Amino acid sequence: MAALQQANVPRSCASYGADEYSAAAAAAVRDLFDAPDAYVLPTVSGIASDALAIASAAGPLDAVFCHRLSHIRLWQCGAVAFYSGGAPLQPLGGEDGKVCASELALALQSAAPLAAAPYAHRPSLLSLTQPTEAGTLYTGAELKALCALAHDYGLLVHMDGARLPNALVALGASASDLTWRAGVDMVSFGTTKGGTLAAEAVVVFEPAASLGGGAADAQLAKRAGHELSKSRFLAAQICAYLADGGGGVPLWRSSAERANASAADLARRLEAAAAGYDGDSFRWQHPVQTNQLFLSLPCTPRGDALVRALGTVGGTPWDSEEEGRQCVRLVTAFDTSEEEVAAAVGALEAALRGE
Amino acid sequence: MAALQQANVPRSCASYGADEYSAAAAAAVRDLFDAPDAYVLPTVSGIASDALAIASAAGPLDAVFCHRLSHIRLWQCGAVAFYSGGAPLQPLGGEDGKVCASELALALQSAAPLAAAPYAHRPSLLSLTQPTEAGTLYTGAELKALCALAHDYGLLVHMDGARLPNALVALGASASDLTWRAGVDMVSFGTTKGGTLAAEAVVVFEPAASLGGGAADAQLAKRAGHELSKSRFLAAQICAYLADGGGGVPLWRSSAERANASAADLARRLEAAAAGYDGDSFRWQHPVQTNQLFLSLPCTPRGDALVRALGTVGGTPWDSEEEGRQCVRLVTAFDTSEEEVAAAVGALEAALRGE
Amino acid sequence: MAALQQANVPRSCASYGADEYSAAAAAAVRDLFDAPDAYVLPTVSGIASDALAIASAAGPLDAVFCHRLSHIRLWQCGAVAFYSGGAPLQPLGGEDGKVCASELALALQSAAPLAAAPYAHRPSLLSLTQPTEAGTLYTGAELKALCALAHDYGLLVHMDGARLPNALVALGASASDLTWRAGVDMVSFGTTKGGTLAAEAVVVFEPAASLGGGAADAQLAKRAGHELSKSRFLAAQICAYLADGGGGVPLWRSSAERANASAADLARRLEAAAAGYDGDSFRWQHPVQTNQLFLSLPCTPRGDALVRALGTVGGTPWDSEEEGRQCVRLVTAFDTSEEEVAAAVGALEAALRGE
Amino acid sequence: MAALQQANVPRSCASYGADEYSAAAAAAVRDLFDAPDAYVLPTVSGIASDALAIASAAGPLDAVFCHRLSHIRLWQCGAVAFYSGGAPLQPLGGEDGKVCASELALALQSAAPLAAAPYAHRPSLLSLTQPTEAGTLYTGAELKALCALAHDYGLLVHMDGARLPNALVALGASASDLTWRAGVDMVSFGTTKGGTLAAEAVVVFEPAASLGGGAADAQLAKRAGHELSKSRFLAAQICAYLADGGGGVPLWRSSAERANASAADLARRLEAAAAGYDGDSFRWQHPVQTNQLFLSLPCTPRGDALVRALGTVGGTPWDSEEEGRQCVRLVTAFDTSEEEVAAAVGALEAALRGE
Repeated sequence: MAALQQANVPRSCASYGADEYSAAAAAAVRDLFDAPDAYVLPTVSGIASDALAIASAAGPLDAVFCHRLSHIRLWQCGAVAFYSGGAPLQPLGGEDGKVCASELALALQSAAPLAAAPYAHRPSLLSLTQPTEAGTLYTGAELKALCALAHDYGLLVHMDGARLPNALVALGASASDLTWRAGVDMVSFGTTKGGTLAAEAVVVFEPAASLGGGAADAQLAKRAGHELSKSRFLAAQICAYLADGGGGVPLWRSSAERANASAADLARRLEAAAAGYDGDSFRWQHPVQTNQLFLSLPCTPRGDALVRALGTVGGTPWDSEEEGRQCVRLVTAFDTSEEEVAAAVGALEAALRGE
Repeated sequence: MAALQQANVPRSCASYGADEYSAAAAAAVRDLFDAPDAYVLPTVSGIASDALAIASAAGPLDAVFCHRLSHIRLWQCGAVAFYSGGAPLQPLGGEDGKVCASELALALQSAAPLAAAPYAHRPSLLSLTQPTEAGTLYTGAELKALCALAHDYGLLVHMDGARLPNALVALGASASDLTWRAGVDMVSFGTTKGGTLAAEAVVVFEPAASLGGGAADAQLAKRAGHELSKSRFLAAQICAYLADGGGGVPLWRSSAERANASAADLARRLEAAAAGYDGDSFRWQHPVQTNQLFLSLPCTPRGDALVRALGTVGGTPWDSEEEGRQCVRLVTAFDTSEEEVAAAVGALEAALRGE
Repeated sequence: MAALQQANVPRSCASYGADEYSAAAAAAVRDLFDAPDAYVLPTVSGIASDALAIASAAGPLDAVFCHRLSHIRLWQCGAVAFYSGGAPLQPLGGEDGKVCASELALALQSAAPLAAAPYAHRPSLLSLTQPTEAGTLYTGAELKALCALAHDYGLLVHMDGARLPNALVALGASASDLTWRAGVDMVSFGTTKGGTLAAEAVVVFEPAASLGGGAADAQLAKRAGHELSKSRFLAAQICAYLADGGGGVPLWRSSAERANASAADLARRLEAAAAGYDGDSFRWQHPVQTNQLFLSLPCTPRGDALVRALGTVGGTPWDSEEEGRQCVRLVTAFDTSEEEVAAAVGALEAALRGE
Repeated sequence: MAALQQANVPRSCASYGADEYSAAAAAAVRDLFDAPDAYVLPTVSGIASDALAIASAAGPLDAVFCHRLSHIRLWQCGAVAFYSGGAPLQPLGGEDGKVCASELALALQSAAPLAAAPYAHRPSLLSLTQPTEAGTLYTGAELKALCALAHDYGLLVHMDGARLPNALVALGASASDLTWRAGVDMVSFGTTKGGTLAAEAVVVFEPAASLGGGAADAQLAKRAGHELSKSRFLAAQICAYLADGGGGVPLWRSSAERANASAADLARRLEAAAAGYDGDSFRWQHPVQTNQLFLSLPCTPRGDALVRALGTVGGTPWDSEEEGRQCVRLVTAFDTSEEEVAAAVGALEAALRGE
């Protein structure tokens, strides 16, 4: 893939100079989102994207709402607090990694009377992850409802879209329908999970809506060491990722489709393998909707054996949501092969047979 | 009381010069806590005390555990994050404002394997409030257990003691028994609630245990504008508060005793007034153990009337812990008079009679 | 003086409740500055005042210009960076503690083309000290010119007025003429140097001009632990300081007049004492214009003896501006007595005589 | 070059897996510096390298000394303050971009008595740039003297080595001689200027000497979004840059040699072209020692014409150090061609002839 990527770069962008690469990448991103006026800032990591986007709209006195499982809360060592100067994350609950609308409503309702109180943070931003940390999906209607609720209380909405292409493909929806048309104000758009080396982008649909607009974003990026002197490298990756990947299908789409299809195939075959052992093997901790599988297994010797078997084919121990059970995560990618799927199924089958 | 305070100052500390005031105040605090080597830093507010104490032990990469109702989390607009450079507060549950030991154990246990992970904050400090935000008390044994648990995982323990004298009096325990002898490493000791104008103190029992020890505390206080050029003023207040307040009883003790006694009296008489209307009037949201009363009332027209009546005698609407109910807080002080207690009881009685 | 102060408090403000104290203090400050719409925030220290004022107008991406000798640069351990999230101080030169207008012009001119560059801080604020750290004064015309220059480049102007009353008295000018009528947008107004225990105030003439206006100031003050639960104490001090101090003259004025007069008297008598030893004794490092005297002495055995002699009457070693020379600072206050002046003169005389 | 680079990558590191790439890069860096125990952290930008390195040794209460022209001070929008939580940069003077040893000595001497004062920042780090911002060089002896001075006062020494290879080649010295053997404690080692796409590295020679050692560095990098999920990409670039670039000469060396040689050639030919116009054309603002040329020209119509001519061949207007003169910077690179050199000389010649 890296080779294809490299080969693609000259082909699709060869005649561009440094600035033209960046302009082409920004244009391609705007095109994908059908947002000709969007501000686009390429970055090298999802953490940088999330933190720069959120900090453009939230300062030390603001509060940011997010799901309790969200990446910005659990996996970034306080990047949002770092970039924003201390904005706290207010965790919300909700099944399968999705923010519960009524819990959000309650939280915003409780906070509203305190908006003028000097001791309270002002709720300023809602951050949603699509697909979620649990691999599940918000429908367009669900997004609209959450965004409307947030906007009613004066919050902006950020979307952590590190794996957004997987959602677009799974829901058969356009990038604009799942973002600004639903009310999302800014997106961290990831391409690294989809096959590039390291290229993400902050996309702000209404620069005026954020604190400092594009100017502050660029300045903050500079200050954080995220402005590359040779940014054409980032841009070229984004160009290639959004360009035709063969047969008239953009690379991002074919990559995401393959990853999702592998996951669906793997899920079906794992279920089939376990069918005869019902109740005694695994169940899904979250429904399989994109390219992540979360298997919930009992904390028993048999469960331990299954966990070990899945570990040999790339399964990672994960937080269990239920007492007395454990969890393993499997992730498929654009380049997951039929053999890898078969190997995972085989490993489970062997363990089930007690081998 | 302010007058008494002012009169006391010259009497108890008159012959001291500027530095001698501060030395006398520090000595008095060390004496109270039976901690001759403690580091003592006077401040003008509880927020400053809490933030300076916690920031001396927790930096941007550390995590601070506290009860979800704690003052540092709900009422300080992110002071801990400000002073520490971004240390996040990890809220814990627990009945009646007290941190639940098993929930803490679970949280520390989950976090332990991540100690070396770059994406995770390192659990570094547990902050306990005594008496709690719900006016309840940790016993010495409960404190010991929580501190031992925290120390087992390498955390320091901070105590928010803005109302500590009320706890000392209610539990009949010494200041040392409820702090360092129980494992507490640092205390924010408040005197303002007890009658001074504005005087609190950071007390660190083992300066060496904290990041920078006293030096960093003083420097941070300076940087935050909390070093007063005429600090003898703060010191004089602390001197007076810890000195004999009449009859051989220190002022802090008699003040706290009066506040607690008034609260107990008020609670008893409110209960008696409501006895005939049982089930139809109020119940305690939290047990009354110090000088704060939390009345839980139904969300009914009758409940509303009671809330209004209590509002006329100083009751404040408070967060209810139960759906379908509302809460009112009443606080007694060192100078709450018999008449004020009677007025509160009378207001409730009248409302109960439907007047 | 502290006693007088305390006695004054009940007399002048006795019938006010908590809020009325604060309202009265704010009204008195607005009255002094002839600025009925000014935002007034009492604080306990000059550092807090300066940092809160500046941080209301300057964030991490802004630059603050100030004299290289300014208190915010040399004596506050980075308070401005702390409160603003990192705004750097850009030091300017200038004789006798006064910002050199042409150096400022050059700096702003150089910075202007970089305003849009992501790598550069945006010049946002000029902070002037009146009287300066060298005890000297900006005339009204000088202030106007500096403010006009700053405003031309889009900067706001802050005045560190920790000793502002000494300037008002020395220049015979009104508080408004030396602040907003000259173009100053916000002042840290000090009263502690003038005799109160610990009371300063942020005064913002055009709240709308600053980033967050009064709301952000109050929130930031809360977050920093500078909101006192019993703020009437601060307010009462400010009331007393701005009220009639006897004979129809406000206390601030009589205090400042006495301090300045003592300084002038002391300067005259020190010069007289040294007259016979011309060239061999001291000269002024800065002209004596308010209540601070800076004596420049040679780095010789004789100079050392004079420094020692001045040390016995309160003189402090200070940074010398000239190689081969040393400096001693003497400060007079509202309560400097005739005896103290005579003692200082006597000490110098004895040392000059070689005793 | 980028193509060569890419081609090199698989060749030199092809058989390594992800972790092996990183291990190989770290080993190659340690080898270059003859420092088998050094901590190596790859990053994507020089700003990130500098800020991460410095912040590992300097917190909010520390002060960092650097040349007034240094990149960390003028070109990074406060990155050091951002990463360190507010450490101020203390600018030092010195000819040709080199820190003046006696000015440093004076600054450290003045600061020493304040080390215990709460109002002062503690001098903690000296940052030197090699080659300097003026393209000049510290000799090994000069570095040793500056480092010894810094160490005497308890400071650590950081080297901004964004163009370090140009210095190694110009001085004919080893990487260890110009760093840890001279007393440098940590280096930001750049490869981007030398031809890679975006790859720099923090190199800490004595991890124990810095505040948090490698652990804090990695955590801070994570928090800032500088940990790449696919870090093998960075590693591969570093591998290729440090590996044999042909003929047994490492790529970094041949790249730097070519850049320096082009600069020397260009300087010689520009001087020759201007010989006939002596006094009327240009002089060097700084001696040409590596690959940067700074031409000082008069602020006259003729000078303006020369500036315009140089602008057509890549010259950039630069800060002039002298009143009445202006400056243009020319930089050569590893891939500067003979034609480009000739074009620059031709442009100057034509302008001198008044064409």
